[in-house]
Amino acid sequence: MINVGVLGATGAVGQRFVQLLADHPWFHLEALTASERSAGKKFGNVVNWRLDAPFPESIGDIAVTPTTVESVKNCDLVFSALPADIATSIEADIAAAGVAVCSNARSHRMDPIVPLVVPEVNPDHLGLIDVQRDRGRDGFIVTNPNCSTIVLVMALAPLRSFAFRDVRVATMQAISGGGFSGVSAMDIYDNVVPYIGSEEEKMETETLKIMGTFDGAEVQDAPFSVSASCHRVPVVDGHTLAVWVDVENPVDEVKKAYASFKSPFSNLPLQPAKPVEIFDQPDRPQPRLDRNRGRGMTVSVGRIREGLRFVALGHNTIRGAAGASVLNAELIYSKKYL
Amino acid sequence: MINVGVLGATGAVGQRFVQLLADHPWFHLEALTASERSAGKKFGNVVNWRLDAPFPESIGDIAVTPTTVESVKNCDLVFSALPADIATSIEADIAAAGVAVCSNARSHRMDPIVPLVVPEVNPDHLGLIDVQRDRGRDGFIVTNPNCSTIVLVMALAPLRSFAFRDVRVATMQAISGGGFSGVSAMDIYDNVVPYIGSEEEKMETETLKIMGTFDGAEVQDAPFSVSASCHRVPVVDGHTLAVWVDVENPVDEVKKAYASFKSPFSNLPLQPAKPVEIFDQPDRPQPRLDRNRGRGMTVSVGRIREGLRFVALGHNTIRGAAGASVLNAELIYSKKYL
Amino acid sequence: MINVGVLGATGAVGQRFVQLLADHPWFHLEALTASERSAGKKFGNVVNWRLDAPFPESIGDIAVTPTTVESVKNCDLVFSALPADIATSIEADIAAAGVAVCSNARSHRMDPIVPLVVPEVNPDHLGLIDVQRDRGRDGFIVTNPNCSTIVLVMALAPLRSFAFRDVRVATMQAISGGGFSGVSAMDIYDNVVPYIGSEEEKMETETLKIMGTFDGAEVQDAPFSVSASCHRVPVVDGHTLAVWVDVENPVDEVKKAYASFKSPFSNLPLQPAKPVEIFDQPDRPQPRLDRNRGRGMTVSVGRIREGLRFVALGHNTIRGAAGASVLNAELIYSKKYL
Amino acid sequence: MINVGVLGATGAVGQRFVQLLADHPWFHLEALTASERSAGKKFGNVVNWRLDAPFPESIGDIAVTPTTVESVKNCDLVFSALPADIATSIEADIAAAGVAVCSNARSHRMDPIVPLVVPEVNPDHLGLIDVQRDRGRDGFIVTNPNCSTIVLVMALAPLRSFAFRDVRVATMQAISGGGFSGVSAMDIYDNVVPYIGSEEEKMETETLKIMGTFDGAEVQDAPFSVSASCHRVPVVDGHTLAVWVDVENPVDEVKKAYASFKSPFSNLPLQPAKPVEIFDQPDRPQPRLDRNRGRGMTVSVGRIREGLRFVALGHNTIRGAAGASVLNAELIYSKKYL
Repeated sequence: MINVGVLGATGAVGQRFVQLLADHPWFHLEALTASERSAGKKFGNVVNWRLDAPFPESIGDIAVTPTTVESVKNCDLVFSALPADIATSIEADIAAAGVAVCSNARSHRMDPIVPLVVPEVNPDHLGLIDVQRDRGRDGFIVTNPNCSTIVLVMALAPLRSFAFRDVRVATMQAISGGGFSGVSAMDIYDNVVPYIGSEEEKMETETLKIMGTFDGAEVQDAPFSVSASCHRVPVVDGHTLAVWVDVENPVDEVKKAYASFKSPFSNLPLQPAKPVEIFDQPDRPQPRLDRNRGRGMTVSVGRIREGLRFVALGHNTIRGAAGASVLNAELIYSKKYL
Repeated sequence: MINVGVLGATGAVGQRFVQLLADHPWFHLEALTASERSAGKKFGNVVNWRLDAPFPESIGDIAVTPTTVESVKNCDLVFSALPADIATSIEADIAAAGVAVCSNARSHRMDPIVPLVVPEVNPDHLGLIDVQRDRGRDGFIVTNPNCSTIVLVMALAPLRSFAFRDVRVATMQAISGGGFSGVSAMDIYDNVVPYIGSEEEKMETETLKIMGTFDGAEVQDAPFSVSASCHRVPVVDGHTLAVWVDVENPVDEVKKAYASFKSPFSNLPLQPAKPVEIFDQPDRPQPRLDRNRGRGMTVSVGRIREGLRFVALGHNTIRGAAGASVLNAELIYSKKYL
Repeated sequence: MINVGVLGATGAVGQRFVQLLADHPWFHLEALTASERSAGKKFGNVVNWRLDAPFPESIGDIAVTPTTVESVKNCDLVFSALPADIATSIEADIAAAGVAVCSNARSHRMDPIVPLVVPEVNPDHLGLIDVQRDRGRDGFIVTNPNCSTIVLVMALAPLRSFAFRDVRVATMQAISGGGFSGVSAMDIYDNVVPYIGSEEEKMETETLKIMGTFDGAEVQDAPFSVSASCHRVPVVDGHTLAVWVDVENPVDEVKKAYASFKSPFSNLPLQPAKPVEIFDQPDRPQPRLDRNRGRGMTVSVGRIREGLRFVALGHNTIRGAAGASVLNAELIYSKKYL
Repeated sequence: MINVGVLGATGAVGQRFVQLLADHPWFHLEALTASERSAGKKFGNVVNWRLDAPFPESIGDIAVTPTTVESVKNCDLVFSALPADIATSIEADIAAAGVAVCSNARSHRMDPIVPLVVPEVNPDHLGLIDVQRDRGRDGFIVTNPNCSTIVLVMALAPLRSFAFRDVRVATMQAISGGGFSGVSAMDIYDNVVPYIGSEEEKMETETLKIMGTFDGAEVQDAPFSVSASCHRVPVVDGHTLAVWVDVENPVDEVKKAYASFKSPFSNLPLQPAKPVEIFDQPDRPQPRLDRNRGRGMTVSVGRIREGLRFVALGHNTIRGAAGASVLNAELIYSKKYL
């Protein structure tokens, strides 16, 4: 068993990490960090558990530690659910201390030597771990993309062979993307908020890095452009995307490309049976009905029609955050980087 | 005073008509029609008033009549809130009987001799009324566009001089667009439904007719294409649109074009002070906060940014339905077509 | 394995039955009935699956049959998810034909010879099955209570020894209680509807029957009164109840009574570890967070305070409908009534 | 014209005050206070206007001042929308400085010499102003009740002659009661929160003071008890109450009592035509449809049935907060206390 820790374990993404790791077949939860004022107390007494999945009683007695390098010295790998302003330096310090970091924070995503990975899309980018080591880091940092970026990337990956150049995407994002208290009810109830700070920039840059090519030394951005318009809608979980791609091929060919898309791995505990599921019904996917497919790890695609237009959907705090990070860690472990 | 009637006065759009007409300075409510089983009863006893505006008591005693030509023979003009399957023949019959019809139904919108009008955009298309008369109709039919089309058209009209060719639009549409009982709560709560039957086709065809050119005999479609992706979101009233247009001009020029856009009329009772209102705040417009601007007749535009991308918003049952029809009737009257 | 069928398998409650029975250790799904127009087709092609749990592929190929006695002749027991107007006669006919009926319909609940049962509360009422047999029925009918009644009954049962006389209950009920299309979005969004047809009467009568005493021949109503006020709120699943009971005992004693409340059985597959779970946090239970406890079969009680006042919560389509019926069937089978 | 100020003008209740006072026939908006960091700036530049009513442009240029005695020295009367922790001392200081204070804060509501007033219910309690003056205050403080208390009091006032003793009330309260950011979307969406801090205590004590008797020197609590259970539901505006009162009289008599209830005044600008409106429809009142009756100042009562049970509804930020305070000020002015 690999000893793992969660940085920022009490927040919305932190709780998802805990949920996914409590009974993990490969990873043993060794450390849970939080703010100073929670340090020393039992996790079960400190956390205000707000997931609809039941609290995993088995880890309730773990003593919470402060978010420091010292706290995770017995871990082989840590997951970071920290806000970006805190993540930047502590993640680097932990990696320098020889621990692997799988981070959901945006801090290091665009760093040229840090892999920004989606296992089904660009597993080879993990090669950047060696670049980090060559630069003298004892541990390393691996990141996963923003919650809406990953849904887009999973939906575009099966279309790679069509050599598209122009992607437009309008998002309808869930309130859980703002954490437990990031979105006030008065802001979003009976409403749409047509703005999420720096979300469009993330989608437009991260997508190109993930779908770019890695030559063993660096990643070259993918040769297309993404133009995003991001909106918050009154949905608890699940980001829905309306996408246009300049693919001229017939819809049938596109559907075949989706149908033949498979994960290059079959041994990762959290990977879903279908990374991308295709719908033929005219009114699917829908977030409330489809976000939990593949235990929240499947991205659903439907309404594939001329244009080329389609609708994509994914669970933003599982496939779009904690689950993405855990799947990366599983890939890292299976590739013997630990 | 012009005597007017409302066809289908008890439904969601019908009630909006009644609300807008109850105290109208030019129009006198003479007839309210509904289904056979309501005929003969007082409107106040028959209608299940479900608007948040108070019921206009003054017209509660009007006796409801069946939806027939006979029922509106004393009217100079009728507004139609009928469903399309009923509207097609009865609207034609009423027009044949010498009564003007302002219809919100889609039945005759794409008929080459029927004007599809937005007063601020294509008032000259009313010239098709003469074409109808030349063909032997005693009355005439004038239509207003679909509820999401009109928001798009109002937001595109100020950009006409930029000679764009390619429009993409993703809609986030309110539940009231489905009438009082068209959308079930289990379908839309905590959810997005990425499909609204034939809505995309309407946006893609109606927009071109409205923004097309009328040469005195027929309307030539506007020379651009519209690609729409339509979605229902959990909002009571107000359709929000994310729009891309291939305008390369600087954003400042675009904002100037919006700022200088004005209605060609200033004497119509229902027209708003600003047909299009521009927002500089990063997170506006929002349906709950902005749908009622200009008594529901103003279309709001914000987030104008390179791409060219922007967000547009309008009240779907006022500017997008009953209000559009009443404004058309005001234009018709002021142009002396009655 | 016991062969079972589901009457009305395509509706909201019917789908819950199918979900709970697809992998049941004791029951084998033999028959699924629906309306005439679905008869003969595969269930997987006919059902519009709208639960967030995945569709159980294993039963997709079962051929749907019409809702007749003939259709279920190979079943030992059928579950009824029929609307009351249809249920009344067909359930009686099926019971007459020698098949056991576990019904969620209200049709026979108040029939003096039909047990209205909650396994943890009045399992002895199953003795009425013998009364039915004595009257010449080959099979029998057993019913479960209305969705809000059962939450109340589960919350009152642990307080029986306090001999209360006066119960007041205000409900905040979920939209799924109206089925997939029973509640329109325009009715309930941003709203409370302070009325649910005949719901108050059901709570006021069914509660007394369930908590009444059975002397081997008939049930005597419990000696207290219930006054209910029922309201629909914008929640997908989970009925929340604010309850007053005239118990003068200290709150600590009441909490002890709850803590010591246990199911009289431990061998029923669907029974939860805790039939009633108590919360000490000031703001629990909450429907979104707590409705799925015990796979939807646990009733949660919190805010126990002087008055005596408390808040109770249960999943209305699992514990309050399909799950209640399946648990009854499990009790019936374990008691060897089949 | 009376010069008035608003303390805490930028918050949710503060904005409602501004909306109601911008065009008031008797009151002239002289001062708007906010936090230090807004001081000196124009109100229009500082406020993030989030009401669906349009921003009153006429007062956009007023310079915001800090919340101090000095800032309101030119006011005859100030309205307080301050949070309780700040309100306690500054309101007392302002009153000491000779200015009248109409406060929505809870700080002084239960002070024996401060009137807690609802104009239609206990206008005579304003006599406590003289008691304050006798104690040496140059100005005075008058308070209005909590947002849910006032709905209950308005619904109970017409029943006074029935001499009831026992009131139970379950509330379903709107999210706007928590201010613009008090309730997070993740807390309340698809959910009910069965707890609002100290709300039950407020309802149970304030009601008795308001309905108590004033003998010219002090107020004697009303001789009944209130037991409240308070819940937050996903509604934007409008508190709905399910009420039980031990009135044995026939429902018809109760309805007559409601029908004959009238305001003792007819000259106050904000008072509604009907302080309490009665519904006979089985499913009314409903917050989205009825909260704006009487410009938000009417309390609606329906479902009056044996028990005695009924449902009451009022707009929580108008009748329940800013509007209550303005109506009090109008009464104070008309009674020549200024």
